Amino acid sequence: MSKKLVFYTNPRSRGRIVRWMLEELGINYETKVIEYGAAMKSPEYLAINPMGKVPAIQYGEEVVTESAAICTYLAETFPDAGLAPLPEEKGNYYRWLFFAAGPLEQATALKGLDINIPAEKQGMLGFGNFEITLNALSKALMDNPYIAGNRFTAADVYVGLSIGWGMQFGMIEKRSEFVEYWERISQRPAYLRAQKLDDELIPKA
Amino acid sequence: MSKKLVFYTNPRSRGRIVRWMLEELGINYETKVIEYGAAMKSPEYLAINPMGKVPAIQYGEEVVTESAAICTYLAETFPDAGLAPLPEEKGNYYRWLFFAAGPLEQATALKGLDINIPAEKQGMLGFGNFEITLNALSKALMDNPYIAGNRFTAADVYVGLSIGWGMQFGMIEKRSEFVEYWERISQRPAYLRAQKLDDELIPKA
Ligand SMILES: N[C@@H](CCC(=O)N[C@@H](CS)C(=O)NCC(=O)O)C(=O)O
Ligand SMILES: N[C@@H](CCC(=O)N[C@@H](CS)C(=O)NCC(=O)O)C(=O)O
Repeated sequence: MSKKLVFYTNPRSRGRIVRWMLEELGINYETKVIEYGAAMKSPEYLAINPMGKVPAIQYGEEVVTESAAICTYLAETFPDAGLAPLPEEKGNYYRWLFFAAGPLEQATALKGLDINIPAEKQGMLGFGNFEITLNALSKALMDNPYIAGNRFTAADVYVGLSIGWGMQFGMIEKRSEFVEYWERISQRPAYLRAQKLDDELIPKA
Repeated sequence: MSKKLVFYTNPRSRGRIVRWMLEELGINYETKVIEYGAAMKSPEYLAINPMGKVPAIQYGEEVVTESAAICTYLAETFPDAGLAPLPEEKGNYYRWLFFAAGPLEQATALKGLDINIPAEKQGMLGFGNFEITLNALSKALMDNPYIAGNRFTAADVYVGLSIGWGMQFGMIEKRSEFVEYWERISQRPAYLRAQKLDDELIPKA
């Protein structure tokens, strides 16, 4: 494998999602820390991500942004780790990945901004309201130990950390199905390794 | 193929995205129209989608919700249509699918609600602000004729209709790269067929 994988991140960012994924894969990659502010909005970095945001990865010629997309892409590009879905897992896998990147992210963001949506507008909004969004996720995690079924996949990295952070920052209630799910996945050696690597970057960041 | 594909939709909904995708595949499917209101919140339908929203599909045992997830799932499950990404298209494919389901959808929703985000909160919000979100999409469509590269894929169904509707409803400016992209893809026979099928359902809906 001659192509190089470069990981653009900041230790205080959603880049931690991608770090976890990279550690699950056990592959070699080079980390480039991008500081918030000028560096993240420099022409050089905007050529990678015109949003001026981290995380991003570059693998050979390909640039991928959006943490959920990066997890999906890496799981398929490095199939030996077994984190891409089996055919019978694909429905749940994509369903909950897009659910977390769309409705859950939107519901949590608006909650964080203290914005309440009038009831008559909830039908058109992809997430409806915060309560039905969380309830849908609860049901999924009461049906299966992992979000795509019986085993850990790349979808658990993204959905899992969304829930873990949501509970940590007080956006998501500590329902038992969320707490147990988070305990199940956050013990993984790759997660602990990823946390350590990012924590070590913080004094320098 | 013995498994049945059931498509839950309403002709006045994001179900039109999935209808287009289904028509691109040229497969057999059964349409179940779910009326807004009581039917969409009935226990029967909530067992399919606990969000009480359309669209959803059921294929054998598997239920998939979230229009972007359904497009992704169908492209892979019916590969003969050639709408799943080639290895070298995967980066862009997932990047822009998740971008449209996440940042673009969120930016457009908040614009529709007339909500302005204070500048100091834009760093944490996945879409930053409306302008940089649209600019990122512009750049992608100035680089390539289709969102994943040189040919039409399932990502164009989802991203394309997000842009087409955004322009139609006045949320997204009619920049030439958006207009030309939409003209390029909305001439497709499958899109025209899908529109006709849904339009015909409207008097009954
Ligand atoms: N939807 C994106 C969100 C990326 C994002 O908002 N990153 C933040 C840090 S968590 C950022 O780089 N903010 C800096 C800025 O906008 O200036 C993803 O999931 O990757
Ligand atoms: N994120 C979902 C959004 C689904 C959605 O919001 N559907 C609307 C129609 S476009 C709906 O069913 N609303 C009915 C309701 O919430 O009561 C997707 O992309 O499929």
